[in-house]
Amino acid sequence: MSGLFICFEGPEGAGKSTNLQYLAAALRSAGCEPLLTREPGGTPVAEEIRELLLRQHSEPMASDTELLLMFAARAQHVHRLIRPALARGQVVISDRFTDATYAYQGGGRGIDLQRIADLETWVQGSLRPDLVLLFDVPVDVGLARARARSTPDRFEQEQETFFRAVRDCYLQRAAADPQRYRVIDASGDLQQVQQALAPVVAEILERWHA
Amino acid sequence: MSGLFICFEGPEGAGKSTNLQYLAAALRSAGCEPLLTREPGGTPVAEEIRELLLRQHSEPMASDTELLLMFAARAQHVHRLIRPALARGQVVISDRFTDATYAYQGGGRGIDLQRIADLETWVQGSLRPDLVLLFDVPVDVGLARARARSTPDRFEQEQETFFRAVRDCYLQRAAADPQRYRVIDASGDLQQVQQALAPVVAEILERWHA
Repeated sequence: MSGLFICFEGPEGAGKSTNLQYLAAALRSAGCEPLLTREPGGTPVAEEIRELLLRQHSEPMASDTELLLMFAARAQHVHRLIRPALARGQVVISDRFTDATYAYQGGGRGIDLQRIADLETWVQGSLRPDLVLLFDVPVDVGLARARARSTPDRFEQEQETFFRAVRDCYLQRAAADPQRYRVIDASGDLQQVQQALAPVVAEILERWHA
Repeated sequence: MSGLFICFEGPEGAGKSTNLQYLAAALRSAGCEPLLTREPGGTPVAEEIRELLLRQHSEPMASDTELLLMFAARAQHVHRLIRPALARGQVVISDRFTDATYAYQGGGRGIDLQRIADLETWVQGSLRPDLVLLFDVPVDVGLARARARSTPDRFEQEQETFFRAVRDCYLQRAAADPQRYRVIDASGDLQQVQQALAPVVAEILERWHA
């Protein structure tokens, strides 16, 4: 048995959280107890940084500041939670990781992708997800679902062009590395999405047993 | 007239704050109105990050996390306050800047100096202080002064070996670049220190008029 690092990616309203619980339950029923976590956050200090990131402030936050805060939270998460769990051989499932930084800060805010890649290596060394599940929905579907359920945070208040750039960036990254990414069509109902997840569950259990 | 970026560096208890006010008053009486600021902090978002850095947490903060938070605050400070003021031709005086990161996170915590240099360039591009005033005191003198006046924060609770490494790092940086650094012996009384500052005041006014 070896540890496996799985990330759930996609916009708000793509059903990541619900499907993460579904996947976790499927793994548990096969005897595999995953560690569930999320970004930004996952540890007490990282959750405090998350709170700072999502809150409204009395001045605009510079895009470099936002990016460094994301990676500060990630450094804590990797150091305190992810690396130790992988070293114990656990399956770690994170609701978002560095792909979200490329999509939101790179695609959405237009930060140079090379600047993101520099910080990724600075913080993570060679750590990358073994598998990224990209829950893809058309922008208007995701936004409608997200807005129906809660007051928008600082990110959710962005305009539709922002979310279009986020989606494009996610899809480009998935297309460039099909070994690592599985694109799940999340526009259908839950049952359809969970059917699409069945081969992924099988794959994870196979790789975990290997 | 051109902007000038001056940093006050040194440990707690070296009298930085008092001497910063003294220098500012001397500049004002010569017709030069400086912008006074501090790190970590200097803008609303950066001050919130400062608060996160100085507070005690329920888990240890990884040294990489601490370093990224320092630079997140710095990115905001540079973007929102320092660069605009320098562009207007102002003299900016900051109570601490990146030298403190080299001294505390590099010297004190033992983070590889090259990793700090990588973030320095990532955040600041080519921006460096024009002049660094290093207020130097023996470790025991600085600690005794600092402890006499307030409850120690997360940094001030470190051990004496930590502060010895901080001081060594500051002095090494000053020795390596005498054009940029002025080492001020801050072990004497205020009057002695302010006498030592007189040529620095003259130099700043000369460079500001140039």
